[in-house]
Amino acid sequence: QRTIKSPTGNELSCKSWLTEAPMRMLMNNLHPDVAENPHELVVYGGIGRAARTWEDYDQIVASLQALEDDETLLVQSGKPVGVFRTHSNAPRVLIANSNLVPHWATWDHFNELDKKGLAMYGQMTAGSWIYIGSQGIVQGTYETFVEAGRQHFDGSLTGRWILTAGLGGMGGAQPLAAVMAGACCLAVECDETRADFRLRTRYVDAKTHDLDEALAMIEEWTGKGEAKSVALIGNAADVYPELVRRGVRPDIVTDQTSAHDPIHGYLPQNWTVAEWKGKQETDPKAVEKAARASMKTHVAAMVDFWNAGVPTLDYGNNIRQVALEEGLENAFAFPGFVPAYIRPLFCRGVGPFRWAALSGDPEDIYKTDAKVKEILADDKHLHNWLDMARERIAFQGLPARICWVGLGVRDKLGLAFNEMVRNGELSAPIVIGRDHLDSGSVASPNRETESMRDGSDAVSDWPLLNALLNTASGATWVSLHHGGGVGMGFSQHSGMVICCDGTKEADERIARVLWNDPATGVMRHADAGYPDALDCARENGLNLPGIL
Amino acid sequence: QRTIKSPTGNELSCKSWLTEAPMRMLMNNLHPDVAENPHELVVYGGIGRAARTWEDYDQIVASLQALEDDETLLVQSGKPVGVFRTHSNAPRVLIANSNLVPHWATWDHFNELDKKGLAMYGQMTAGSWIYIGSQGIVQGTYETFVEAGRQHFDGSLTGRWILTAGLGGMGGAQPLAAVMAGACCLAVECDETRADFRLRTRYVDAKTHDLDEALAMIEEWTGKGEAKSVALIGNAADVYPELVRRGVRPDIVTDQTSAHDPIHGYLPQNWTVAEWKGKQETDPKAVEKAARASMKTHVAAMVDFWNAGVPTLDYGNNIRQVALEEGLENAFAFPGFVPAYIRPLFCRGVGPFRWAALSGDPEDIYKTDAKVKEILADDKHLHNWLDMARERIAFQGLPARICWVGLGVRDKLGLAFNEMVRNGELSAPIVIGRDHLDSGSVASPNRETESMRDGSDAVSDWPLLNALLNTASGATWVSLHHGGGVGMGFSQHSGMVICCDGTKEADERIARVLWNDPATGVMRHADAGYPDALDCARENGLNLPGIL
Ligand SMILES: NC(=O)c1ccc[n+]([C@@H]2O[C@H](COP(=O)([O-])OP(=O)(O)OC[C@H]3O[C@@H](n4cnc5c(N)ncnc54)[C@H](O)[C@@H]3O)[C@@H](O)[C@H]2O)c1
Ligand SMILES: NC(=O)c1ccc[n+]([C@@H]2O[C@H](COP(=O)([O-])OP(=O)(O)OC[C@H]3O[C@@H](n4cnc5c(N)ncnc54)[C@H](O)[C@@H]3O)[C@@H](O)[C@H]2O)c1
Repeated sequence: QRTIKSPTGNELSCKSWLTEAPMRMLMNNLHPDVAENPHELVVYGGIGRAARTWEDYDQIVASLQALEDDETLLVQSGKPVGVFRTHSNAPRVLIANSNLVPHWATWDHFNELDKKGLAMYGQMTAGSWIYIGSQGIVQGTYETFVEAGRQHFDGSLTGRWILTAGLGGMGGAQPLAAVMAGACCLAVECDETRADFRLRTRYVDAKTHDLDEALAMIEEWTGKGEAKSVALIGNAADVYPELVRRGVRPDIVTDQTSAHDPIHGYLPQNWTVAEWKGKQETDPKAVEKAARASMKTHVAAMVDFWNAGVPTLDYGNNIRQVALEEGLENAFAFPGFVPAYIRPLFCRGVGPFRWAALSGDPEDIYKTDAKVKEILADDKHLHNWLDMARERIAFQGLPARICWVGLGVRDKLGLAFNEMVRNGELSAPIVIGRDHLDSGSVASPNRETESMRDGSDAVSDWPLLNALLNTASGATWVSLHHGGGVGMGFSQHSGMVICCDGTKEADERIARVLWNDPATGVMRHADAGYPDALDCARENGLNLPGIL
Repeated sequence: QRTIKSPTGNELSCKSWLTEAPMRMLMNNLHPDVAENPHELVVYGGIGRAARTWEDYDQIVASLQALEDDETLLVQSGKPVGVFRTHSNAPRVLIANSNLVPHWATWDHFNELDKKGLAMYGQMTAGSWIYIGSQGIVQGTYETFVEAGRQHFDGSLTGRWILTAGLGGMGGAQPLAAVMAGACCLAVECDETRADFRLRTRYVDAKTHDLDEALAMIEEWTGKGEAKSVALIGNAADVYPELVRRGVRPDIVTDQTSAHDPIHGYLPQNWTVAEWKGKQETDPKAVEKAARASMKTHVAAMVDFWNAGVPTLDYGNNIRQVALEEGLENAFAFPGFVPAYIRPLFCRGVGPFRWAALSGDPEDIYKTDAKVKEILADDKHLHNWLDMARERIAFQGLPARICWVGLGVRDKLGLAFNEMVRNGELSAPIVIGRDHLDSGSVASPNRETESMRDGSDAVSDWPLLNALLNTASGATWVSLHHGGGVGMGFSQHSGMVICCDGTKEADERIARVLWNDPATGVMRHADAGYPDALDCARENGLNLPGIL
């Protein structure tokens, strides 16, 4: 069993920072503090992997170490398949993961290919090497909860509590984000080891096996106006309906089990975790059937909460779709989180912008935090986020930071960071990337593009154009994935990462990529007719021939 | 009603040849001698369009005319949506057409979007502006028929005849290709105007409304050993079963109706063409139902021929899939043309390489023909093709040539053409492109990737990587399409075109793009385990880390 940790410091093991960067970030994705199951190369989100096999991992690393400044490595579903001559402003790595011709784009066909060693599930940032641990989702979740507080509770979540489930790679961010937003949180998690991991990293405050005890804690904390969280070991498909039966009324209800993957992601009712893991190998069809039935029960309870007037949201795991397919006709009664809370941000190209310090030195991130505050001197909300993040979020692997910012800000920050690398303020280069869940990079009708104003939810030209443009603009690596958080058949999305190596050439690439990338999001939403996006496009002088 | 013709000569209407080239090729796709239905922007293959609307067309042209050397235009399903700053070695145009998230990738959903003005069907080379009229498919069809002759008739098709249907944009090449390969051809076409168009351009030799007359001609010609062709006005779904009933035995059976599009592509039995066109607007569901039933009858007759020992092949229109869905269980009894005849070529990166003279001057093409013969002095088969093509193929729109060549040849030819532009041998720049139906650019399990050795038919990472790499290598325009010849849900594919403007910078881009592009095809087939591809990769020194 191998343990992978990225090198730190400013000595190169590759021929340049543009190849060192993807190598370190690949390794960082598999760091034991970052990945959910590093021994099987699983980073997060069910079976989201960083490389197809250990042999492929080794060959990717070796290829990156040998790669020249005018070469590009192609990675096909986690396998390095070719090195080609390109040029210095081309990406060093191009990645395509889990893409299937639509008619065959099902879990059944994917699993068949996976068994033959012909596939890999890339999730979003797992196979594209820009996962930075749970912090990555904390701000998104925080922004969502804060926005829900604005819409439903006059801007204050004090004395309120959120019911959710799933404390995995992404879902584990929920109790912390809730607390940061001022709310209490009860998170149901079936796998005790996951809850323990969140306790250790201070993402959750308490743990219990007993529903009564959990509710008592919530009652005490909300009564006192304290923001605290508890993990309840149990099955969400049992707990949610039980709460409905008891007439317990949370203030917000959501869920982040890995429902997008009915075999590996969701524990069926009345199964032990051990049985579940075993049967995933020996009888996956039985797991799938039982899991899907439980999801229906789970969603039915969520619909009950919704009908009782509790703000309820799908948190991007496609659980409503499964329930619908299982016959729950009103499964889509409650909305997804994007149309409910995130779309206004997307209209301005605002999304989960992030960066990591290749030095491994937390000071480098603190210095960038200070720089962000300096550049965005008036953004109180962002200052607050940065302060809380520093106080509450333990770094995992390479130190990293996430800030939801948009068009016109991203390129400024990137250029400032590159300047800090150049003048030695930072001890090594920085990489800048984002989640695939971003404004211009994803087509996902049950999540990011749910209920688009013009009905273009399923049009996936947009993420493809985004990837092509990022390639043409000189991102350091670019990826195109299918599946991701909502599972096979339900989304296509693209990623990009750019390395600030301190050079003047990097300035030019950064200026292009970090402008163009969020601009494609503004463009996509402007094309759909959102007035905010049209305004943003005009204010920023975008040239959108068929749109403006 | 507008008539579009590309400017010719060597004066620019755009700011450089790199933008003039896509503008002229877009216009050329809509030239009245090139496009099947230019007034509706339809180039070929049912509803394959070059731009979404006339307004979009005008805006694309205006954008190209204004585009700078460091800008890139994005086209989304035939609509120009953005102009972004890139750099001189980036593509000038990036195109994504008809892409849909897999779960929604159906004709029903596409048509709904199309009706709302949110979609465009790009086919393969229609929406990517490198259709060159029927010549484009003549050599592919010729190579297929020749290979069938090799496999089944000891290398000679003299005295043999081919039964086929469909004389549209692509299918119209069949009688000519058959004749070039030495065979006779009976082509059933329901729309007399289509047959007349082929008569005018000398692609077919005779026309009749009477089956007996057609068979008499075939009998006479095959008896004399003459290679000639006849168009029979009729419905293939009537004629094929009738031939089976009569016990008539063609030597090869195929079909190229637009079966991939059940509403616009296939005339139902017992309908007139006028009824069909009308109902496409007023009752598309009824058309679809009737067309699908007729296709089943049509395929059933093809299976009968196959069972009687007649070499029978699907020619890439997905008609077997429809028949299967309609309940014809043995619809896939006979193979597609790729696994049967084309795959060995794909293993060496050989595919439908093509170029066009932006000057509009046929002499430019004749000079390139001579250059090809000079460079490939020993390739008798290719010399023969070039001679026949010059003799028999009337240019449509801008003069163009197609040659199936592969890795190691394409870049040589490209560099030679660029040199000829530079030294004034040619009167204006040349563009070089290819069909999306090529070795590394398509995932299409019922056609190009049918029955792959390792079962990876549906993996579409490959065309996505191909598009990303062509973008990174500096092709002049790059496209990613869904659908195409086999219809919604059944394929994903990519295109590229590069302009030889005579500059030294173009030399570098040409050397990269025309090497890398076919190399991805060799890579894809090597990964699937084809010994020919593995040999070709080794011989050419490809660096394929996880494969070799
Ligand atoms: N909203 C977003 O921005 C976003 C982003 C990424 C991922 N996602 C989606 O969120 C989901 C969770 O992602 P993740 O990375 O945390 O996945 P994960 O697989 O790491 O964690 C899922 C957790 O749910 C637990 N679980 C499974 N079944 C359960 C049940 N019946 N009751 C209680 N707990 C159960 C598992 O034990 C596991 O800890 C995925 O579907 C993912 O695709 C959403
Ligand atoms: N094999 C290849 O390399 C390749 C390449 C491109 C396209 N294709 C596929 O081949 C098909 C034909 O392409 P195209 O560009 O010629 O399309 P097209 O639409 O221009 O032509 C189709 C022709 O078939 C005729 N037709 C329709 N129904 C008929 C019937 N029942 N009986 C007789 N004739 C009938 C139509 O009148 C039309 O002329 C398409 O499905 C296309 O996707 C194959």
